[in-house]
Amino acid sequence: MSHLPPSPAWPDPVATDPRLMGWMQGSPPPPDKLVRFADGSRMRFPMSRWAFSHMREFLPTAAIARGEEPPPALPRRPQPLDKVESTTMHGERLTWPQALLRTYFDGVVVLHRGAVVHEDYFGEGAPRREHALFSVTKSFVGLLAAMLVHEGALDETAPVPALVPELAGSAYGDATVREVMDMRIGVDYTEDYTDPAASIWAFSRAGGMLPEPPGYTGPHSLAEYMVTVRKQGEHGPAFAYKTINTQVLSWVVERAAGRRLADLLSARIWVPMGAECDASMSIDSHGAAFGGGGMSATVRDLARFGEWLRTGGVPAPVLADLRRGGDRAAFARAEMFRATLPGWSYRSMWWVSPEGVLMARGIHGQSLYIDFDAEVVIARTASHPAASNVFNDPVTLPAFGAMARALCA
Amino acid sequence: MSHLPPSPAWPDPVATDPRLMGWMQGSPPPPDKLVRFADGSRMRFPMSRWAFSHMREFLPTAAIARGEEPPPALPRRPQPLDKVESTTMHGERLTWPQALLRTYFDGVVVLHRGAVVHEDYFGEGAPRREHALFSVTKSFVGLLAAMLVHEGALDETAPVPALVPELAGSAYGDATVREVMDMRIGVDYTEDYTDPAASIWAFSRAGGMLPEPPGYTGPHSLAEYMVTVRKQGEHGPAFAYKTINTQVLSWVVERAAGRRLADLLSARIWVPMGAECDASMSIDSHGAAFGGGGMSATVRDLARFGEWLRTGGVPAPVLADLRRGGDRAAFARAEMFRATLPGWSYRSMWWVSPEGVLMARGIHGQSLYIDFDAEVVIARTASHPAASNVFNDPVTLPAFGAMARALCA
Repeated sequence: MSHLPPSPAWPDPVATDPRLMGWMQGSPPPPDKLVRFADGSRMRFPMSRWAFSHMREFLPTAAIARGEEPPPALPRRPQPLDKVESTTMHGERLTWPQALLRTYFDGVVVLHRGAVVHEDYFGEGAPRREHALFSVTKSFVGLLAAMLVHEGALDETAPVPALVPELAGSAYGDATVREVMDMRIGVDYTEDYTDPAASIWAFSRAGGMLPEPPGYTGPHSLAEYMVTVRKQGEHGPAFAYKTINTQVLSWVVERAAGRRLADLLSARIWVPMGAECDASMSIDSHGAAFGGGGMSATVRDLARFGEWLRTGGVPAPVLADLRRGGDRAAFARAEMFRATLPGWSYRSMWWVSPEGVLMARGIHGQSLYIDFDAEVVIARTASHPAASNVFNDPVTLPAFGAMARALCA
Repeated sequence: MSHLPPSPAWPDPVATDPRLMGWMQGSPPPPDKLVRFADGSRMRFPMSRWAFSHMREFLPTAAIARGEEPPPALPRRPQPLDKVESTTMHGERLTWPQALLRTYFDGVVVLHRGAVVHEDYFGEGAPRREHALFSVTKSFVGLLAAMLVHEGALDETAPVPALVPELAGSAYGDATVREVMDMRIGVDYTEDYTDPAASIWAFSRAGGMLPEPPGYTGPHSLAEYMVTVRKQGEHGPAFAYKTINTQVLSWVVERAAGRRLADLLSARIWVPMGAECDASMSIDSHGAAFGGGGMSATVRDLARFGEWLRTGGVPAPVLADLRRGGDRAAFARAEMFRATLPGWSYRSMWWVSPEGVLMARGIHGQSLYIDFDAEVVIARTASHPAASNVFNDPVTLPAFGAMARALCA
């Protein structure tokens, strides 16, 4: 725990309830209550507490369509879980509701053996309102890739340019599909959300997720950006978590399957799992899905997805490979994660605990937690002020673990 | 029929099938197959044949949410209707399928006594894929206004500034709500889609439906545009069909109901009618709905809406008032419509035939046709090359009439 960053004094979660603050209330909202794309306010706390529940109102999106059949029933066995307690990595004792508030949750669904034992919302969170999933999206893309590999439709040992010749001159020219799937890529691309010069911002501008500054002459699509990135170091040895890798994998997956990512997600996951609502995927100005982080979905559907995965939604070898995890030594060398995720690893865009718990994780606290032994799935959407999960993990991970233990006790 | 414009030689509807033409196929699509927002191609034929089925991929949208319950069953009684014939206003004999193709249909659902007797799709049209409704949206807004008037929540005799003080200095400063509902407004605003200088383009740029040209200094929201329009002539005497009137009515309705338009459409129409899919509403950069024409919905849900209206979805006096229609003499003086809609009128944003048929109509052929006597509802989405319905009405209206007669024969 020695590398754990100190916990700053965060704003009050209750006082930043977007309903209380009045974001986007009024017709039209007064200027000081507007949340906009053009001024970047949608990504800034506390405006983000409204925006993350309304991402399609800022960006072009493609539908990830549910099927025509009614969704399978989700039985409800509410349990008195408010007294479940956990100890944060900073040593504080919190009840489950306190831990949720402390991590600025917008929605939470806990399933035990397929039944909803707890469901709650805060602020703009609502049962049928989708919420930004950010990098939880990556785990969907990684799962699609793993399914295609299992089916023989994608060769994980192939070099990326075998599928995407456009990337031959880029950092990915000599990378294998598997190296991309596991984020073992040496690429000159940075993703520190606190650094205004980080590559993620140029990537985001190219993808239309940020407004173009006046006189902008950079790339106008994700593909145009991806072909420009250069190699730095070697592929293979290091685990380096970078959104561009998933964007490259999305391109690979689309080429392997011959379909647009949103359609593929619909056909291979959203329809088979019996989603209640359509989800959405933000797209760039050329129609390419932001596979690195562009999904929004309801927290209920996120939980359904976890339950589907837990109970045989994908072939057993695909799931077993995920749960075995990736290279723990490589993961442990990644400064950013070793403090809060000791013993974890990363495989096919999933986070894997030493005990085989699977997590999908997105900035600002988006989480899907699948504990196979406890038969527990926890989906939580959030609008934490900090992008990096290193600031909510000290509360989140002990709370999720305590909840799983309480349910299987 | 003497004022009927000649029928130009239109492109071949089958050869402009967007699947054949390959729009947006490939990852990413090659440059000559891209349909984009920035270059305006989404609104140009034949790219529009792809784009109208994918509007949310170009624009920010708010969800119009369906309810949690499964949609009521829509019984199917398919009938051999392919031989139903009609004579166009230009004297040509066409079968039902020929008339559909000739009007560049993308989807069609025909209900008789609540059962689906015909359903078909073309090109990018699909049962669960929403399609741009354009000014069909106006009839939804007009219906909401009429419902609020009936409930006493909106005074149709009130001057617009009583609800929207911001409009006191505009053309609407001395207009009543009812004059707006019936498009009896004298306003310096033009809407000829073939005139590049028409006001509709400045309105669209303000609303974010068109890209801002470099150095743009105009209004950045629909509200900012609306306050600038000036009076021209008098309110009351003339019927003048202008999208800005519905945009003003949307503002009035939001203020009267105290809710955002998309939420109001959901709560008052989409949930009660038992929609199968969410619909979407394009919004401006300040989150305001484009009530003048921003909805997309599936053609099935459009048909369900017609059936709900036909069978008591709204209070009987509201429906009776619509069906009585508006001022036929005023309507007959409107050059644009008298050739194809003789004897019709306009009431609360609905088009009303001399026989009490109700229509909701949008550019490029979007249509909802409700024939109460025949107990027939026809919903059709389309991507006709011409914006103005004067070019498809000569085929559409005889075909719809023949279908209704055939079904109740």
